[in-house]
Amino acid sequence: MKVAVLGYGTVGVGVYEMLKAAESLEPGPVLVRPGKVDTDFKVSSIDDIVGDPSVDAVAEVMGGVEPAFTYAMAAIRAGKHFVTSNKALVAAKGVELNRAAREAGVCFLFSAACGGGVPILHNLARAARTDEILSVGGILNGTTNFMLDQMQSTGKDYADALKQAQELGYAEADPTADVTGLDALRKIMLACAVAWGILPQSGLLNEGIDSLSAEDVKDFMERGYVCRLVASGQRAEDGRISAYVEPVLVRAGDAESAVLKNYNMARYEGRNAGPIAMIGQGAGRYPTASAVLRDLSGICQGESAMFPADCIDGAADNSAAVHAYYMRLPKTCADAVPTAKILADDGNVIRILTKCVSVQNMHACAAELRKAGQKVFFAAVREA
Amino acid sequence: MKVAVLGYGTVGVGVYEMLKAAESLEPGPVLVRPGKVDTDFKVSSIDDIVGDPSVDAVAEVMGGVEPAFTYAMAAIRAGKHFVTSNKALVAAKGVELNRAAREAGVCFLFSAACGGGVPILHNLARAARTDEILSVGGILNGTTNFMLDQMQSTGKDYADALKQAQELGYAEADPTADVTGLDALRKIMLACAVAWGILPQSGLLNEGIDSLSAEDVKDFMERGYVCRLVASGQRAEDGRISAYVEPVLVRAGDAESAVLKNYNMARYEGRNAGPIAMIGQGAGRYPTASAVLRDLSGICQGESAMFPADCIDGAADNSAAVHAYYMRLPKTCADAVPTAKILADDGNVIRILTKCVSVQNMHACAAELRKAGQKVFFAAVREA
Repeated sequence: MKVAVLGYGTVGVGVYEMLKAAESLEPGPVLVRPGKVDTDFKVSSIDDIVGDPSVDAVAEVMGGVEPAFTYAMAAIRAGKHFVTSNKALVAAKGVELNRAAREAGVCFLFSAACGGGVPILHNLARAARTDEILSVGGILNGTTNFMLDQMQSTGKDYADALKQAQELGYAEADPTADVTGLDALRKIMLACAVAWGILPQSGLLNEGIDSLSAEDVKDFMERGYVCRLVASGQRAEDGRISAYVEPVLVRAGDAESAVLKNYNMARYEGRNAGPIAMIGQGAGRYPTASAVLRDLSGICQGESAMFPADCIDGAADNSAAVHAYYMRLPKTCADAVPTAKILADDGNVIRILTKCVSVQNMHACAAELRKAGQKVFFAAVREA
Repeated sequence: MKVAVLGYGTVGVGVYEMLKAAESLEPGPVLVRPGKVDTDFKVSSIDDIVGDPSVDAVAEVMGGVEPAFTYAMAAIRAGKHFVTSNKALVAAKGVELNRAAREAGVCFLFSAACGGGVPILHNLARAARTDEILSVGGILNGTTNFMLDQMQSTGKDYADALKQAQELGYAEADPTADVTGLDALRKIMLACAVAWGILPQSGLLNEGIDSLSAEDVKDFMERGYVCRLVASGQRAEDGRISAYVEPVLVRAGDAESAVLKNYNMARYEGRNAGPIAMIGQGAGRYPTASAVLRDLSGICQGESAMFPADCIDGAADNSAAVHAYYMRLPKTCADAVPTAKILADDGNVIRILTKCVSVQNMHACAAELRKAGQKVFFAAVREA
């Protein structure tokens, strides 16, 4: 199978190298920006790929919704299989791509878009065919996990942890999508669609780690907690789907606390299979490229889709997901949330454990306080 | 696809129930012992299954090499796909079954034989097609993990932990295969064959947990260690494959230490994908049945084999795998192993940290001492 590659950045180079080494796959043309065509195998027009009858499949690793979406639809309509690592594309346009691919009779796979080298979506799709998936989630962003691990193991503050992540190539120059939880949110959107055939487009909530301070870390570590940025998706009995990202305080000794550096831990729970967790490198050239290659090889073995045939866009509802939170806020705002226990009070800033509140209300409360110029941090508390 | 089931014990009932609920699968006849045919769907002769043209696939969950092997070959030769949870069968006869299935043009899958609900073999097979697998292994036996967890969290001695495992249905009346590491060894044999196309039949080593005492647990826990029974497979640069099972002392905080109760943690490392670990329930009716169902559904999706086409029987070589061990032995036998440090000495029994020795030499040394009537315990030491 001959595979064209769209994009020749970190992951694109990895995909191209692995294609050269693979047995039943071979690299086709690689799409680069005009002016970057410096060797034989590079082209700068998508037409040179879509119009090339020798190309069987297209692997897109450019990132961003456009022009990736336009290119993807052109490739699919030209009868090429389409594999991508692009979570922004699939989160926004996955339903349309799934429909187009099925109409064209081609395969549409995107393992690398969630978990990098961790094969969570593939296994979720496989499990969903014969088991009822109860929940999906986990630590799906390696950049923030690296930063949290650094802050907790060395006492670094947020700015230093971010700077270090950028120096090591774990965080981009603009780290917004990672540190606000948006990147993890896109991944949990994909997992929901694979598990339940609904790609939530509204009602989603994401709280990142950009409000976390070295003092917060010091305080909750003294209380025996470790912080992780966790994505959660769940289907209630009535069919409603919750989907959100927020910091979670787990106990040292919980499985998540052993997920260090820039690793991911993706999980799902099947009614029959029980809970399954998968740990590995969630990003990086070769881990991500290896996921693209497994999808391409999977096509040769008969794999064709991750979303079910009737997958639709839908809405998330986070009003029924309820738990207690750890919260740091100005003492003058103490009434904003129902307090179960005051953990610390320095006269200006208090740290509290809230009563059980819904994810929706908690995120709304924090947004309200921030709108009023107040500084707050919150994290769900996982009790034993 | 109509699926006949061989065996109607714990897993067989689960497979039958899940087949009834599955969309693209339906249950066929179930083979039970003569005298146990009490309803319509049960038969007591394999001929009623092999000779039934409406049966597309056979799921074998009886256990044991015979008569399972004879039945499997009959089914394969009759053109039925063959799926099994039977690690003893595949460890002994996997190469022959793989060859027969490929000759007959049918599928041969056995996810449930290693890791129960944890989809390690499927992912390993998928990864091996486009990546070089460097190592395989992990905590592959839930019974012993439950016992270790109990001994370490409650101070129970070995006999009490075993009794509790039996009462809960985690250990069989004859627990030999579990507690000696033989069960985990069979699983690592399968993983080696999936990863490298060589099913080791000789040179294998397994040390279980049946020499572990409450005093041992107390001692190494005070030193900050947690014990796990770990299976290891590795391919050296020269192509030799090591394959062995032994207790390993990991640091509290290592990922393995968070694997509690009867859970499994299976892992592999790919040159490109990096290390991948999968945690879940390694046994039990529905976790294991769910693995059988995923294989059957996988056949509908185009999956056909886990062993490569040219998979052969071979030998393991554990002479080049080298590390330090924790060892408890009689003081009079102190010369048996090269000592790096004496950890404890009560006049009769000493606890030592050995210098780096090969797995082969360490297992041989313990066997020698036991042959002479001496009591010893040893565990590899994982250093940070």
